[in-house]
Amino acid sequence: MKPGIKVFAPASISNVCVGFDILGFAIHGPGDEIIISEGTQPGLIITEIRGAKGKLPLDTTQNTAGVSAVALLNHLGENKRPLEMIIHKKMPFGSGLGSSAASAVGGVFAVSEFLKTGLTKQELLPFAIEGEKVADGAIHADNVAPCLLGGMVIIRDNVMFDFKKLPIPAGLFICVIYPHVTVLTKESRAILKKEIPMDLFIRQQGNLAAFISAMYTSDFELLNKSLEDVVIEPQRAHLIPHFYALKEMALKEGAMGFSISGAGPSMFAICDNSFIAQEIANKAESFYASKKLKSDTYVSKINHDGAIVL
Amino acid sequence: MKPGIKVFAPASISNVCVGFDILGFAIHGPGDEIIISEGTQPGLIITEIRGAKGKLPLDTTQNTAGVSAVALLNHLGENKRPLEMIIHKKMPFGSGLGSSAASAVGGVFAVSEFLKTGLTKQELLPFAIEGEKVADGAIHADNVAPCLLGGMVIIRDNVMFDFKKLPIPAGLFICVIYPHVTVLTKESRAILKKEIPMDLFIRQQGNLAAFISAMYTSDFELLNKSLEDVVIEPQRAHLIPHFYALKEMALKEGAMGFSISGAGPSMFAICDNSFIAQEIANKAESFYASKKLKSDTYVSKINHDGAIVL
Repeated sequence: MKPGIKVFAPASISNVCVGFDILGFAIHGPGDEIIISEGTQPGLIITEIRGAKGKLPLDTTQNTAGVSAVALLNHLGENKRPLEMIIHKKMPFGSGLGSSAASAVGGVFAVSEFLKTGLTKQELLPFAIEGEKVADGAIHADNVAPCLLGGMVIIRDNVMFDFKKLPIPAGLFICVIYPHVTVLTKESRAILKKEIPMDLFIRQQGNLAAFISAMYTSDFELLNKSLEDVVIEPQRAHLIPHFYALKEMALKEGAMGFSISGAGPSMFAICDNSFIAQEIANKAESFYASKKLKSDTYVSKINHDGAIVL
Repeated sequence: MKPGIKVFAPASISNVCVGFDILGFAIHGPGDEIIISEGTQPGLIITEIRGAKGKLPLDTTQNTAGVSAVALLNHLGENKRPLEMIIHKKMPFGSGLGSSAASAVGGVFAVSEFLKTGLTKQELLPFAIEGEKVADGAIHADNVAPCLLGGMVIIRDNVMFDFKKLPIPAGLFICVIYPHVTVLTKESRAILKKEIPMDLFIRQQGNLAAFISAMYTSDFELLNKSLEDVVIEPQRAHLIPHFYALKEMALKEGAMGFSISGAGPSMFAICDNSFIAQEIANKAESFYASKKLKSDTYVSKINHDGAIVL
């Protein structure tokens, strides 16, 4: 019997301050582990989900990892292949860290690696997005693409799967702060105004263009100035307890930028060294502890690898 | 007596499809020539304006070239210095090609060069913007910055004068089409809706980010896809006679992108070689001639030099 394989699909930060729905990057941890092995009956079944306290469905038509995997199996004409999947959620969900994207990516990537399809990650992207759609209800590749491909990714078009990986300046470190409160993506999206005032549109465009340019040129001064979200953050900050206190602390510590990860409640700081990132993590945990709120923090480089076989 | 000097300040294309108010680039021609020489009475006077048919004021508090030059002279404490300025407008105004920016840049650059101030172009930018403000009524650096500095420039912030020059992929050629109709910048701005729908905001952001990335990587396929303005062009196209017929022709000929230059009525095509650019120019002139409309066309590389001493 063929031995099973285990893959890792990392957490990711979407929106990245100035790229609402079009920018995202992967970090090294946390993430999902998914094991695929041969089964005993036709088709894919999910035998176990660890770390999710019964919150996720075993049904492969409802589970994001199952849906992406089955989408690939259907494409390959292998939907009767006996396969078993174990999902180990090693990251929080509803955290704004791309949990469903990690499952969607992990599912299709594990199956592709197990079957040795030879498909590129780019070719797997549409199947991963199918899985993400089950969780999100809409097509958004800004977590899925960086989780699968690694690095920081521009999604030019969510429908045409046009994307581009950006270079990452040496020395960038990310601090992620996840306060244990629930922010539902759908609600976080629903509160956004349907229209953006022209003056804010222009400012956000200037910041976005400058940010992309700064990434190509390792221009940390420009990176610092451009990491300002004048459109989305002001509308969502109130969903996150003490957001502005945390932001003020992080910028004072020397973060180049600080904003909401995805739909929240997680936040992220972009720093030019690991000491600042770690200091922000320590202070954030202490701060939330003083408010009797639980939190987790993660300090990581941007993850160039994306999904990997363990 | 010290000999006078003559400078050239080029036309420029602002907005560039996906960078409304935050992107612009210079071309090689047309442009303004400005001559500065010693005068016989205290202060700067404009002695002659050629090529403008009496349409521009000689008064240095009203003329864009005068205002930018005087702003610099005041800064230097040289406002009593006897100086004479001749302005030769060698480009159309009200064309959407940055005519007032060329005058504003030419005025301050000529004075700075004549007085050998040693100031960098970057240091001259605020004075040039002072001049442009007289014509435009608002602060917009998206023509002034590329006209002065050359190349393609991101304006991150119009107030803080934060800008960044982009690399230009080898082989890019621009075709500019100027139909002889009048479009007033103020009117062209007034018709724009004050708010932008979220879905168009996201699409424009995706295109902008991809465009900047494509410029850094000479990715012509991505450049081609990203040069699509879903926000401004649809609101202004009707101001320009036969805009969509011209656009269809240009794209059919192989242009990577086609849109409105500044507030119009000029249009520009971005092409990956000079033959396509020239063919579009020829067909556009023939087309407008068949409609009994006069037009001018210009085929140029992007101008890396900006303002120069002749």
